[in-house]
Amino acid sequence: MTEKPLILVTNDDGIHAKGLRELVEVMQFFGEVVVISSEVSMSGKGCGITVDQPLRAIPVEKIHGVPTWKSNGTPVDSVKLSFNNLFDRTPDYVVSGINHGANSSISVIYSGTMGAAIEGSLHGVPSLGFSLDDFRPDADFSKAKIIVAKVFQSVLDNGLPPFTCLNVNVPKGKPKGVKVCRQTHGKWVEEFEKRLDPHGREYHWLSGYFKNFEEGSPETDIDALQNNYAAIVPVSVDMTCYKTLEQLKNWTF
Amino acid sequence: MTEKPLILVTNDDGIHAKGLRELVEVMQFFGEVVVISSEVSMSGKGCGITVDQPLRAIPVEKIHGVPTWKSNGTPVDSVKLSFNNLFDRTPDYVVSGINHGANSSISVIYSGTMGAAIEGSLHGVPSLGFSLDDFRPDADFSKAKIIVAKVFQSVLDNGLPPFTCLNVNVPKGKPKGVKVCRQTHGKWVEEFEKRLDPHGREYHWLSGYFKNFEEGSPETDIDALQNNYAAIVPVSVDMTCYKTLEQLKNWTF
Repeated sequence: MTEKPLILVTNDDGIHAKGLRELVEVMQFFGEVVVISSEVSMSGKGCGITVDQPLRAIPVEKIHGVPTWKSNGTPVDSVKLSFNNLFDRTPDYVVSGINHGANSSISVIYSGTMGAAIEGSLHGVPSLGFSLDDFRPDADFSKAKIIVAKVFQSVLDNGLPPFTCLNVNVPKGKPKGVKVCRQTHGKWVEEFEKRLDPHGREYHWLSGYFKNFEEGSPETDIDALQNNYAAIVPVSVDMTCYKTLEQLKNWTF
Repeated sequence: MTEKPLILVTNDDGIHAKGLRELVEVMQFFGEVVVISSEVSMSGKGCGITVDQPLRAIPVEKIHGVPTWKSNGTPVDSVKLSFNNLFDRTPDYVVSGINHGANSSISVIYSGTMGAAIEGSLHGVPSLGFSLDDFRPDADFSKAKIIVAKVFQSVLDNGLPPFTCLNVNVPKGKPKGVKVCRQTHGKWVEEFEKRLDPHGREYHWLSGYFKNFEEGSPETDIDALQNNYAAIVPVSVDMTCYKTLEQLKNWTF
């Protein structure tokens, strides 16, 4: 009998998030599942790692009957630990999410959900990050779970090139289907809220809105979401800008 | 009289790092400088941001006579704050470093130094991250400072395309020159060290070595460093893998 593939499930919303539990439920249809996540939210940790503190990871109460570990590290730390000190065998797949809130466009660089997926791809296994465009703790993941199953099955059927992962964003409500997209060109415009604490000292809350530089471009992930499609963007770890590279070759140093 | 450009200097090694002070010294030749950094090290924070804690930033003792702010945020948080609530005008350039230790190849995704430079580019200004291939707190930055001056002058002369920043790594010793490169294809192989604390509980120290998948490729940043050249890699915020995108279009969903 062939051994079932080992699927590592993680997220950045923490071990108590509904989206994590929902993802475990889906992945149990595809293989043996292990979970690692954090007690506190790791939202916004991007590809951050912990270099100046020791990491701890301990088994905690199982989620849906599968071995579950709690880590004090970032999502990337947790993936790194999972490929090293924790389990008897290394994961065959890394699946991250389902995030409460979209990680489309430039959010890919800030997202801990995608940090984990990117790290999985660096360990040479097919890796996917899933996000639902709904921040609410009690968001309805029932439709998103169907998309997760469809996309993961496609990855099983087709494979993924090494060092590439998928950023999958699912709209609220009922998706019309799935679109393969590129990352939307856009940015977050910050609107820090300045307040005074009870001691009269200033502090700032990061807030803001997303600015889309190419509104209505049908090949972009945001456009797909706005038209109620789930958006799949293949993500590469090579951040070289090859167009600029050619220009720079004409500079004299 | 034309106003001097405002240059934001930041780093991820914290406000007491020698590399930060050295970078301020160089940038004073190019414009008006303001500094923002953190009390503690933010190494490895990548593009991480702080979403669930308030940020604080306060003026502290000037470095080389320029206004200096201490922030409790990540390098990206500090750049975001600098474009919003802190100064009378927004920076015209963001310069990050000089990092104690190289940020070549895949380290670009984990590096707080590069997180700050990437964030600067998202704010639409030319941005550069500088790193010296020497981890020591008392590393000799004298040669690296010449490279910083050369490269920054080139950026002044030629400009940079929007949403692109430069990842500049300088070898130890005397560089033979400057090479324009692409990001080396490689990864960190972790070797977590497992220990027991005084209470008998396990903890793990992240450690490891770099594995170069294309040893000796002359167009890569690691190869340039190994041959004693400073390496410049233009870095893009578009993480779409376009090659995979074309393949994915043949998948049926």
